[in-house]
Amino acid sequence: MSQETKTTSAEAEIRALLDSWLKAVTTGDLDATMAHYAPDVIAYDAVLALQFKGSDVYRKHWQMCMTMCSEMSFKFHDIHISAGDDVAFSHCLNLCGGKDKDGKENTSWMRMTTGYRKINGKWKIVHEHFSAPFDMESGKALFDLQP
Amino acid sequence: MSQETKTTSAEAEIRALLDSWLKAVTTGDLDATMAHYAPDVIAYDAVLALQFKGSDVYRKHWQMCMTMCSEMSFKFHDIHISAGDDVAFSHCLNLCGGKDKDGKENTSWMRMTTGYRKINGKWKIVHEHFSAPFDMESGKALFDLQP
Repeated sequence: MSQETKTTSAEAEIRALLDSWLKAVTTGDLDATMAHYAPDVIAYDAVLALQFKGSDVYRKHWQMCMTMCSEMSFKFHDIHISAGDDVAFSHCLNLCGGKDKDGKENTSWMRMTTGYRKINGKWKIVHEHFSAPFDMESGKALFDLQP
Repeated sequence: MSQETKTTSAEAEIRALLDSWLKAVTTGDLDATMAHYAPDVIAYDAVLALQFKGSDVYRKHWQMCMTMCSEMSFKFHDIHISAGDDVAFSHCLNLCGGKDKDGKENTSWMRMTTGYRKINGKWKIVHEHFSAPFDMESGKALFDLQP
């Protein structure tokens, strides 16, 4: 198999994993969502804490997010994937939406970077980084930026 | 060369690149800083914009940062590196400091994720993601969190 074919195949595997993650998250399926992560995942989420270490801790955070915010939606934009034989990463902008407790729909563009390792022949997410940039004067997250 | 040795060697190369980047950034050397990036780097910085596309655009942003904030310091904490033959990523917490225009020293913990590709035999940064998490109620960046 040529290097190019190999790379394309790994990229396709990562793209399939992203699509599968998206389906799990947007249907609010906590178990299916967590199946994408390695046990020792380290996540830098957009809110609350500097990091979430390990899938048990991250599961509780995902559960809180899914409870707080129903009908979550994510729309990937400008996805870039770099994939080797057993290490890969991807990044994209992500139009995130959801309904809060009062049923109000909120959307904003976030940035999403994901790190993967092939473990026992299967790609798993070992690192995730979500964020919104902030304004230097006010210290407030910038939710109104457009790509 | 065994797979393990190969991986360790690539990890060491990434670690050396991070140290070299750190030296360039903390000495305010714009040219040396930019030498670490691929021409088509896509950066998600902590401030101002969703993304900076290409090293020309990112160079201007770095120049602004170095002008605004003198004696920049970065202290890596809890670095994790995943490195294959030609694709790698790393992440760490980063205690960022600097003096503002009034000479006041500010420090805060940020999250830093970096994506690399080996291009013509040399590792280059093709993706960078810096951020601080924000508080869901106030929408304000959380600068006082401790690891």
